[in-house]
Amino acid sequence: MNWQMARRAERLNPSTIREILKVTEQPGIISLAGGLPSAETFPVAAMREATERVLREQPHQALQYAASEGFGPLREWVAEELWSQGLQVQADQVLITTGSQQGLDLVGKVLVDPGSRVAVESPTYLGALQAFAPFEPDFVALEGDSDGPLPESLEAARGARFAYLLPNFQNPSGRCLPAARRLALVERALALGLPLVEDNPYGELWFDAPPPPPLAAGAGEAAVYLGSFSKVLAPGLRLGYLVAPRLLYPKLLQAKQAADLHTPGFNQRIVYEVIKDGFLSRHVPTIRERYKAQRNAMQEALRAHLPADCHWQPPRGGMFFWVKLPAHLDAMALLPAAVRAGMAYVPGSAFFPHGGHANTLRLSFVTASPAQIGAGVAALGRVLAAAEAVA
Amino acid sequence: MNWQMARRAERLNPSTIREILKVTEQPGIISLAGGLPSAETFPVAAMREATERVLREQPHQALQYAASEGFGPLREWVAEELWSQGLQVQADQVLITTGSQQGLDLVGKVLVDPGSRVAVESPTYLGALQAFAPFEPDFVALEGDSDGPLPESLEAARGARFAYLLPNFQNPSGRCLPAARRLALVERALALGLPLVEDNPYGELWFDAPPPPPLAAGAGEAAVYLGSFSKVLAPGLRLGYLVAPRLLYPKLLQAKQAADLHTPGFNQRIVYEVIKDGFLSRHVPTIRERYKAQRNAMQEALRAHLPADCHWQPPRGGMFFWVKLPAHLDAMALLPAAVRAGMAYVPGSAFFPHGGHANTLRLSFVTASPAQIGAGVAALGRVLAAAEAVA
Repeated sequence: MNWQMARRAERLNPSTIREILKVTEQPGIISLAGGLPSAETFPVAAMREATERVLREQPHQALQYAASEGFGPLREWVAEELWSQGLQVQADQVLITTGSQQGLDLVGKVLVDPGSRVAVESPTYLGALQAFAPFEPDFVALEGDSDGPLPESLEAARGARFAYLLPNFQNPSGRCLPAARRLALVERALALGLPLVEDNPYGELWFDAPPPPPLAAGAGEAAVYLGSFSKVLAPGLRLGYLVAPRLLYPKLLQAKQAADLHTPGFNQRIVYEVIKDGFLSRHVPTIRERYKAQRNAMQEALRAHLPADCHWQPPRGGMFFWVKLPAHLDAMALLPAAVRAGMAYVPGSAFFPHGGHANTLRLSFVTASPAQIGAGVAALGRVLAAAEAVA
Repeated sequence: MNWQMARRAERLNPSTIREILKVTEQPGIISLAGGLPSAETFPVAAMREATERVLREQPHQALQYAASEGFGPLREWVAEELWSQGLQVQADQVLITTGSQQGLDLVGKVLVDPGSRVAVESPTYLGALQAFAPFEPDFVALEGDSDGPLPESLEAARGARFAYLLPNFQNPSGRCLPAARRLALVERALALGLPLVEDNPYGELWFDAPPPPPLAAGAGEAAVYLGSFSKVLAPGLRLGYLVAPRLLYPKLLQAKQAADLHTPGFNQRIVYEVIKDGFLSRHVPTIRERYKAQRNAMQEALRAHLPADCHWQPPRGGMFFWVKLPAHLDAMALLPAAVRAGMAYVPGSAFFPHGGHANTLRLSFVTASPAQIGAGVAALGRVLAAAEAVA
């Protein structure tokens, strides 16, 4: 049969991470690879109560077709929440999405032509590379330091469709942009006429102090902002949102309609019932506390077990440590030995738009317990020590 | 700010139907326009029980990230169900989607290049035109009669990426392809090497006898098949599926990952709990009975109230009547008068890939009660009679 695929299908490829997870998520392996939030943080009781209420009080509305824009009160809630973070947003700029991953797909669909340029951090979120790639952009890798992309690096992105930035506790690097870097980046982007797409799945997961205001707060009509309920409630609900300038909103909305008509109203109404009376302000601190303890456990374990020529910065929020091995070590090549030793991580290369950086790896501290983290990092330490002894 | 949209964004346009619905869904208007299933058919009690069970027995799994392919037992259920309809499908060919609308988006993304040809019925499902359009195909309109597209019309589609067909109680025309037409279409498609994309949201909603086996049953690796739980359970769950040949499955799966990672596991597990013990075989007959009575009410009302030079075939399933007005009447132009008279319909032109056919309209009989259907059609009759008197 003459199935002929679209050219863009060449740019669709198996997720390295998902392939690794398949191999490594075996019983007995301590996985520090996946980015799964701790299931202990899922507010099951609140979900049960909210679901019961939705199915008792508004079952027909919750189970019927609904507006592509999203459930009105939830859009209002998002706008108010973002307003409190410095983003001057109206509810009619909020589009509820099926996870913030869908926001990335819609942004790619509406803004990316084959051969157009899209600037990304290096490393950056793998799922964003995968969402944009089928629309066939040329990725421009922004140079950065431990405070994030350098403002002057945006020069290389002049004329790009947008720069995709994750200011808060980035996946995979864990770093958070200081306020001054944010201001400098926004100023330079505005001067260049370079639009920004800001992704903020992890901003609420801070351990010591909230991160500075979002880039979009200073960028006005120059930014699309993406958010998610996956890390503060539960990812299995697939609930996120985007906020768009009025110029872009109608096309993003039409792309949303074409993609799945609307995000499940059932899920939107349940989440709104859970959060409408301030639940998150009580719930999220418990997640922060848990993840901070696990961050601390991983920091201690890394200090105790990793060879002295490995480098990392303890993240001040989020879910990940980013580790640089000595230049001659290859994290992908070492992974089978790590799995044999009983642990798994994600090699860092997949997070770079043009690959390379074989001596980097990502460790998640949110899924495993502190004891498992200790044991897993100890195993990693043994694998690295052995590799260094051979080399 | 220099937002530059992708060329494909020109092909994203507001849904005519959704725009009409906004205007017409006012209090006091009897809307026969929308395709909303009757909320009375939503199995609220079963949903409540299943949700309670999922949140009690498997809350962590239901609320966690999940496999992009979908929930294993649900994929098995779909494969078994389709097997009973003559489709020889394995569970690993089933991809759970966020409504079957997402299946259309994924098919477009993986198979359609700018300028490639896609064959569609004329009229066809508007949401499919909207899903495919941003990938910039040239639509080939297949000629048909009251039994569906003509087998010889496929000649004009030679070399197209696929032909998109809705054999059962099509939206908008309501017609169902007889068995002989199905066989002839599949035979011709196979001879031409023309792949088929078969969409079946309405097949279970038959009133007298089940429709013949799906096209895909005879097409083997030459067909993608799309199905949905929206019409047999509830659309607000956004739960559908596609079945793909092994050649295509990996790329469709990667497109799915990029689009929203996975369909909400919460929804998948709830639906599986609802249906796993044969619930649909008790529930769907009650939907059929209700819709059949409403179909009968609309048929009676049309006979009683429409001018003699209007034409329609009573559908033997599904949700819609398709009405042809005399050639000089324009359904779009008459809509404001209809709304003033207290009812709404959808003008037929939007369902044609190349527009035209201004003298057609679609009426839904599933949302309104028999009494409302009677009153709404009577109002339509008055509007048409007045228009004919003027003309």
